[in-house]
Amino acid sequence: MPATTDSATGDHGYISDKDRYLARLKRIEGQTRGIHRLVSEDTYCIDILTQISAITSALNNVALGLLDDHLKHCVVGAVQGGGAEADAKIREASDAIARLVRK
Amino acid sequence: MPATTDSATGDHGYISDKDRYLARLKRIEGQTRGIHRLVSEDTYCIDILTQISAITSALNNVALGLLDDHLKHCVVGAVQGGGAEADAKIREASDAIARLVRK
Amino acid sequence: MPATTDSATGDHGYISDKDRYLARLKRIEGQTRGIHRLVSEDTYCIDILTQISAITSALNNVALGLLDDHLKHCVVGAVQGGGAEADAKIREASDAIARLVRK
Amino acid sequence: MPATTDSATGDHGYISDKDRYLARLKRIEGQTRGIHRLVSEDTYCIDILTQISAITSALNNVALGLLDDHLKHCVVGAVQGGGAEADAKIREASDAIARLVRK
Repeated sequence: MPATTDSATGDHGYISDKDRYLARLKRIEGQTRGIHRLVSEDTYCIDILTQISAITSALNNVALGLLDDHLKHCVVGAVQGGGAEADAKIREASDAIARLVRK
Repeated sequence: MPATTDSATGDHGYISDKDRYLARLKRIEGQTRGIHRLVSEDTYCIDILTQISAITSALNNVALGLLDDHLKHCVVGAVQGGGAEADAKIREASDAIARLVRK
Repeated sequence: MPATTDSATGDHGYISDKDRYLARLKRIEGQTRGIHRLVSEDTYCIDILTQISAITSALNNVALGLLDDHLKHCVVGAVQGGGAEADAKIREASDAIARLVRK
Repeated sequence: MPATTDSATGDHGYISDKDRYLARLKRIEGQTRGIHRLVSEDTYCIDILTQISAITSALNNVALGLLDDHLKHCVVGAVQGGGAEADAKIREASDAIARLVRK
């Protein structure tokens, strides 16, 4: 999975199926814009909360996908490279996981 | 986004300090647009995850604020009105809380 | 808040179907004891994590049930009683919800 | 609870500082027993919820610690061993992370 559709110049071209992520993020951006409209129109609170839960779920899924890519590419690469780099990558990953779990 | 601005004219004008919510949601929308850019630029995954955690935190805070407003206004109003309406409102609130907690 | 061991006389006898909660909590206690055994026996980490997720889910469900009971009984009662008591109860409920959501 | 105590003899002796985990899990077990008592004594619901949040936080911390150990030992070992084993370990880890995040 070498890839990198256009940002071939990026240092971290590890994201598999980047177009799919970008499409999902576009959708999430539209959903947050939708929440703004719902609040400005005094939509019933419970309906707004349902939308917010949908967005946080979608964001969590993006995060979990990126994390999986990270483990598969960056962490594996660092381990194969050996040395302190691998330890540092795993520490970073663990910290990111903790932030996702604790929210 | 025409909106009513004056919550007094809304159907569910229960949201306290609506302008503050709208400003926070604008900021969250900008942050999700930022994630899209980070992915398209192949930014280092861990930095993207940090941003996503910040957005889900911000969305959770909006949701918790709206829920508090909901309890204070809709639920209290329904209880004062009496009858089955109050039960229905509390059931809805409990379901929304469960969605937020389980994500 | 004087408290009283006998649930029949308790100040907060609001918990519906208390026996069911107690049975669920007994099961959760057994599950946490099970985790201790799994760790002491060097069980494969992923299997331990699966068990921990099951316990936190079960605890969240207990919490959501208690919260629903709380809204239905304490909050409704306080609103019907009127005055500052209702505000205080709702503030407490919102704080508890925030703790559950943020974890 | 016979157990092996000495992690060196375990199949998956990857858990660093096992005694510390065991002590934390003993404490968590005691806390769940405490929740049972609080419910049976009709303790004020909000106080029970506070305790439940403390337990789920403590369990999350144990899970995050075990996951970090897993990445550092099992995943790194599998990557060094090479082949499909590493992919399988990472897939398992990602699934476990998803369960923790989604709860």
